[in-house]
This record gives sequence, C-alpha cells and structure tokens, in this order.
Amino acid sequence: MTGYLLRRIPLFRMLLWSMTTTYLSAQDTTSTPVDQAVHHEFNLGTFSIGGTDVPNVKVVYGTYGHLNPKKDNAILLPSHYMADHHGYEWLIGPGLALDTARYFLVATELFGNGHSSSPSNTPRPFDGPRFPVATIRDNVEAVHRLLLEDVGVTHLKAIIGFSMGAEQAFQWAVSYPGFADCIVATAGTARAWPHGIVRLEAEIGAITQDPGFHDGDYAEQPANGINQFALVWAGWLFSQEWWRKELWKEGAPASWTMDSMVVSLEKEFSAGADANNLILQARTWMAHDVGKTPGFDGNTEKALRSIKVPVLYMPSETDLYFPVGDARYEAGFIPHVTLTPIPSLWGHPAGAAASPADKKFLNQKIAAFLKANTKR
Amino acid sequence: MTGYLLRRIPLFRMLLWSMTTTYLSAQDTTSTPVDQAVHHEFNLGTFSIGGTDVPNVKVVYGTYGHLNPKKDNAILLPSHYMADHHGYEWLIGPGLALDTARYFLVATELFGNGHSSSPSNTPRPFDGPRFPVATIRDNVEAVHRLLLEDVGVTHLKAIIGFSMGAEQAFQWAVSYPGFADCIVATAGTARAWPHGIVRLEAEIGAITQDPGFHDGDYAEQPANGINQFALVWAGWLFSQEWWRKELWKEGAPASWTMDSMVVSLEKEFSAGADANNLILQARTWMAHDVGKTPGFDGNTEKALRSIKVPVLYMPSETDLYFPVGDARYEAGFIPHVTLTPIPSLWGHPAGAAASPADKKFLNQKIAAFLKANTKR
Repeated sequence: MTGYLLRRIPLFRMLLWSMTTTYLSAQDTTSTPVDQAVHHEFNLGTFSIGGTDVPNVKVVYGTYGHLNPKKDNAILLPSHYMADHHGYEWLIGPGLALDTARYFLVATELFGNGHSSSPSNTPRPFDGPRFPVATIRDNVEAVHRLLLEDVGVTHLKAIIGFSMGAEQAFQWAVSYPGFADCIVATAGTARAWPHGIVRLEAEIGAITQDPGFHDGDYAEQPANGINQFALVWAGWLFSQEWWRKELWKEGAPASWTMDSMVVSLEKEFSAGADANNLILQARTWMAHDVGKTPGFDGNTEKALRSIKVPVLYMPSETDLYFPVGDARYEAGFIPHVTLTPIPSLWGHPAGAAASPADKKFLNQKIAAFLKANTKR
Repeated sequence: MTGYLLRRIPLFRMLLWSMTTTYLSAQDTTSTPVDQAVHHEFNLGTFSIGGTDVPNVKVVYGTYGHLNPKKDNAILLPSHYMADHHGYEWLIGPGLALDTARYFLVATELFGNGHSSSPSNTPRPFDGPRFPVATIRDNVEAVHRLLLEDVGVTHLKAIIGFSMGAEQAFQWAVSYPGFADCIVATAGTARAWPHGIVRLEAEIGAITQDPGFHDGDYAEQPANGINQFALVWAGWLFSQEWWRKELWKEGAPASWTMDSMVVSLEKEFSAGADANNLILQARTWMAHDVGKTPGFDGNTEKALRSIKVPVLYMPSETDLYFPVGDARYEAGFIPHVTLTPIPSLWGHPAGAAASPADKKFLNQKIAAFLKANTKR
C-alpha cells in the first residue's frame, strides 16, 4: 500500500525531487518524450559561499538542445528546492514552450541539492553542518561564471524559474539587468516574506529536534525528523480546496484512504534526502531578498523597480508558500510586468505543472511571452 | 525580550489559551471591564467518552449574568481548542453583543482542556494516553445533560462557537434541531475537512516524535516536542499578508525583530500545556463531521440540510485552518444561513476578535443576528 503513492503519484516526490516527468507522462498521454539532458559539472575552484571561501566548488547542470553558432539561443532554468536539472521537463519538448530544436537550455542545480556542492558531498572542513549557508546571490554568481566560462554565452534569451528558481530569476534581473531578454517566474517571489520564514523554521525544527540529528553530525540520517519534516510540508503543498475535493483520489485504487495518504506523505515524501542538505537549502530560500543586493540598501521595492526587462509573473492562485497576494504586491513595483496567476487548486506545485491543466496553461503563456519578448 | 510577547501580545497564547481579554483590554481602551464568570463543575458520573464508559466524568463551565425566572435567556458558548471558559469575553459586556444584564451565558470547557475531564486529570485506567478520544458529539451530549440537570434550562436563545466551538454549535444544530433559536459559528466548520486532518497530524507528530514523549507516559512534559508543536502552529495562525505587513510590529519595541518573534512563538505559544491534552483535543477536532451523527450515514451534506434554525456563518476571509471556501461550500447546504465572512488579515483568530476591527465587526453582526433571530 505505501508503495502506491510512489508509483501512482510520484507527484509528491516530484515536488521536492522533480520527478515531474514521470508523473506527467503517466497522466498526460498526449505528451511526447522529453529530450535527454546532457550532464555537466563545472568546477569553480575556490568560491565564496556565504562569505566563506570554499575550495573545489562545483555546480552540476544539464543541457538540452544545441547552442547555435551565434550563441544567442540559450535559456537558463535554475533549479528549485532539492531538485536536480530535470525539474523543468514539463516545459521542454516539441509542442511545448521550450522546443530544443530552437533553444539551447541550461538547467543548473542549486548548492545544497546533493549534486552541486552541498553539505553531503563536501569534505572537511566544510562538510555537513559546517557548509556555509549559500545565498541565492551566491548561486547566481556561480552560474554567471558557469555561463561565461563553461558554456560560453554572454547573453540569454530568458531565465525561467519555479519556486527557488523564481528567486534566482529575480536575482538575475536585479544583479545582471540586461543579461537576459526577459524573465519568467512561476510560484516564487523576489523575496522570502516573513510567513515563509516562519514556515521554513518549522520545517528545519522538525529535523533538528530529532536527537539523531546530533547537530548535523549524524552517522545515519535522522529518519524520524525527516519524516516529520515531510508531514509538516504536506500541509503546505496543496490548497485546502484540493484536499476537500480529494483530488488525490483521481485514479487511485478504491482501497486508498486518507489514512494511507497521510502515512505515505510522511514516509515517502522526503525519503532518501540528506538532513543537512534539506536544512541548507531551506536557509538559502528563507534568507533571500533582492533588496539585499549591493546598492539597494535592503530595499526590496527599490530593487524591484530596477528591473529593466519584461517579467512574466505567474503565481499559483492557491499557493500557500508564495501567495498570490505577495506576488501582486511585488508586481506593483516591477516596471514591465505581466501578472498572470495560474488558475489552479494544486497550490504551490501548480507552478511546476502539477496537473495537466497547469501544464497546458504554463506552456501556452510562457510560449507566447517568449515569442513577444525575445529577440529573434 | 522573550517575555515581551507574553506581556504585549498575549494574543499568541490567547488563541490556544483564551487570554483574549488581556490582549484586547490592552489594545482597545474603549472596552469596559468584562463581567466576572462564576465557576462551576458538573459531575456526570459514569459517562461514555469515545464509546468507553469513564467514571466520574466532569465538565467545568463558567456562567455570566443571571438566568431569568422564565429560564429563557440562556446562551451557550462552547470552548475552542485548549481554551477555558473565558474564551468569549470579547463578546461579553455592556455595549457588546452579549450584555449580561439581559442574557445568561453558559461557557463550557471541552474534554481534554485540563479542567474538564482530560488525560492530565483523570486517574487510572483512563489517565494520559489511555484517555479515550472524545468526539465533538460526546462533548455536546455532556453539555446537554449539564444544561438540563445542572443549569436547569431546556432551551437556549443561541449557541455561539468559535473554531472547535463552531464545530460544537453545528453539532448541536444537527443533534438537537430546536434546542436553540439560532446558531453562530465563527472561524469553524461543521466538519474537519481533509486538509485540517493533515495539518493536525503534523502537529501531533511534532509532539510524539520527541523521545521524551514515551508514548504519552512521560514523567516530565516533552518540552522539545511542545516547542516544535508551537513552531508548526505558528505558520498556520495568521495570514501570509499579516506577516508581510508585519502587523505584529504594532506597538512593539523597536528592538523587536523577526528572530525574536519566531523564538517567542516557539517558546511561549504552548508553554505549560500538557502533551496528552494537546493531542487529545487535536484528535477530537480532526475526527469531527456532523455527517457521522446517527441517521445521516456519514453524509455531511445531508446533515447540513437538516439544520432547522437560522445560522450566522462567519468564516475569516484569511483563515488557513477553516478556509472561507470550506465555509462557503457548507453554507450551500444549510437552509437558513447568513454567510458573513470577516474581512480581516488576522487569519483564524479573527474569529475570536484578534484585532479591534474584528471585535467590532463580530459584535455588530452577532448582535444584529441575535436581535433578528431570537424570541423576545
């Protein structure tokens, strides 16, 4: 029974681990196979993370399609919480917004995801809990170098980001105003507003409270804490109406109950994750504010006003992490913004095409925006 | 510093511990002192709780004002989560909806609150984790007997309930259709919908994960678990916009920061609570569904359609526990309903007058409803 959720609704894992493709291909029989990503690893040498010089810092990324001779067909897709570079495959392929016959896609992985430099894969003295808290700006700086030095592009057609990917997209627009023709942000804001901080502190607390966490120096994962992390997260994922309408029942076996649902969320949602990685990325997330960019004096609104390129801002109407009200507030300061809320009951993951309707809506809006706002 | 929240914003404790009066009297200098409640205790003898006969079951309650000779001026105020009988004082007093010169108020306390029969105050064999999970219907049955046998009333002008108090008010309307002239429900529904179950499972998990919980047989309170419970709860209390607008800053010292705010929520919100009581009441809450009343075959909608008396249904527009959409859904089945959402950023506690504006709105609407819907 507990395996059911994993097989039938990898959605729940997808949200953290970006198994989007598996889920959608199971749901949406009209979708075509996604192009294979080519795996890359870029070594930055010694790089400043959270103000600390860390040696042998690496960023893992995937590319789809081919860079054209003029090197002007690249789009950046920065990853979301605990995702790898497969997190945007709901947008990629023939007939979708990002056709690799046309675009060259660079999908980067955040520090702390277990592949790019992370608490779990960095040697002493920066291993585990000693890994410095990376900021979104650190991630953007690393990818900026990656694009210039490893990919060989100095300009992007677009930066498209979901969730923490949206945080990065906004940071790019503030730090490197003309680097991309345009920005797309789905289910993510330019700053972690206070509610998000409270929510993520509770997630972190779920792990650190486990005596097996040992201040991050555990021999085995603190499994109870990681399960409790998942259980707390479960309440925030989808909208209350999604739960009332029991949308998880679609296609589920008749024996599936709320109880089995809750048990599965707890046991499977963050199974296999590293506790220090979960915490590190949560701290990256919650510390973010484009207003903290040098030159803006901590003023979020001033930083938003500085954005020069067109922005397609797509909050989910029912997102409990990055509520539509926060997006609407920020949009009020962005000079060239198209605010297009996603009409969905799927909460936060609506911004990563959690349902077939979300996938269709996102692809249509993003394709039209790219057509109108990128140089041909 | 940490004491500040307790002194200045007992709101955060109020929500669980109903320290409403202290908070509001500090905020709202126009309010008059609340009448003193008279404390009572009713012994039910052996009483069925969760299908188990428990000896010497008691319900604690407070009364305000005086029962008139015709015994027709009583209003029932059933308590909310972990509250005592002082939880409705935002409604009580001259100039407020419930003037004790006119009404006789009976404010009852739920099983599990630490005063009425609870895990913490019941001897073996029903102590601690062995105390059976009370249903909302058990609570209503106990109070029905209390009204008939201890208070001596066979009819009520109204039943007014906030949160779990609203759950009780709806249950009264289904179990005893004509017992009250009318029903008022603020920030609470007739059923715990699935999202509420997921949310409360995470709360319970926060406590049970603490190794000090010892399956409920602890010598000392599992303090880490109770703190983590509070931290998880904190994210659900207020609206995201309340946090973005930093409404907690009103009147706070200049030194007060988000960090001190979060620490205070964690350390003070459920300090002093008993872990088994917290869990018991959460299980009472999440198991509730008026559809489970005998005769309705588990059909919530059918039970709602059976309600005969007028209902004033006042969800908070920003409640994350009992969202306005769930209230709107239920209201669609209630024959004589006035749906009046509370326009507030204060989330769930808006339904207990968390802000002066909420207090004014609730008092005005409830006073007008009582005037129109109770026999004079």
